[in-house]
Amino acid sequence: MSVTDELLANAERYAADFGKGHLPLPPARQVAVLACMDARLNVYGLLGLAEGDAHVIRNAGGVVTADGRRSLAISQRLLGTREIILIHHTDCGMLTFTDDAFKEAIAGETGLKPEWAAEAFADLDEDVRQSIARVHADPFIPVKDSVRGFVYEVETGRLREVKA
Amino acid sequence: MSVTDELLANAERYAADFGKGHLPLPPARQVAVLACMDARLNVYGLLGLAEGDAHVIRNAGGVVTADGRRSLAISQRLLGTREIILIHHTDCGMLTFTDDAFKEAIAGETGLKPEWAAEAFADLDEDVRQSIARVHADPFIPVKDSVRGFVYEVETGRLREVKA
Repeated sequence: MSVTDELLANAERYAADFGKGHLPLPPARQVAVLACMDARLNVYGLLGLAEGDAHVIRNAGGVVTADGRRSLAISQRLLGTREIILIHHTDCGMLTFTDDAFKEAIAGETGLKPEWAAEAFADLDEDVRQSIARVHADPFIPVKDSVRGFVYEVETGRLREVKA
Repeated sequence: MSVTDELLANAERYAADFGKGHLPLPPARQVAVLACMDARLNVYGLLGLAEGDAHVIRNAGGVVTADGRRSLAISQRLLGTREIILIHHTDCGMLTFTDDAFKEAIAGETGLKPEWAAEAFADLDEDVRQSIARVHADPFIPVKDSVRGFVYEVETGRLREVKA
């Protein structure tokens, strides 16, 4: 039995207990969160979100990539969110390598060098500030009154704000 | 008080109850999930994930974009995940517009046309199959034995598999 099959059994239990009824498409709290994909970062649990509350965007690093900006633009323009929360975290995998070394290793194995930036970073707080700056520089995200960045501490469960 | 401040108060409660101790960086279940950012799709709740179990990647549509493939490559190559779960959902915002109309509206307002594809789609199951195909076509994601796609039904809480 694959892990996927085990998780599907959990999904059947979720459906059996499902009592949400109809929830509207636009997020009730008008917030979009962009966070790292890290397994220890439970965005719903951490922020106390319930189904229907907020858009949750996640990728390797919680970096504001072009795809992150696409998602934020759709979130605000089509679905009415107005605040942005960015979350990186301690002990992040993105702190453990460099783009050059990662891409050289892949090229050595596959014969192809990735055309994308891996977006590794060496300084956690600095990369949160970089992500905030990328949101502010984006011409397609209309609402930038509340763009705040945080570091989640996987050791303690605490969320620490990074001042821009 | 902003919504962000309200969510930060929730985060303080989360930290106060935090009893996870040290969890390792690699996901315990060796699974990566790529799902839509939709507020009604609670990936942890649906799949019964606990902190530390799985990478969770999310964007507008749950589409396998270049950034999604970057995240999956990092997930597998550096952090050992081996199964991929793709989740789209019913009543998705991406079904409500076209790339052309969305980008023209933005260009009309800002004077700039986005350089990215918005990735709107007209057929839910077909876009899940497209996402599965994009994973299989990617040269940088090494493990493709278990790449399965699903539609989450926001009306019922059920997860339905889409056959490739």
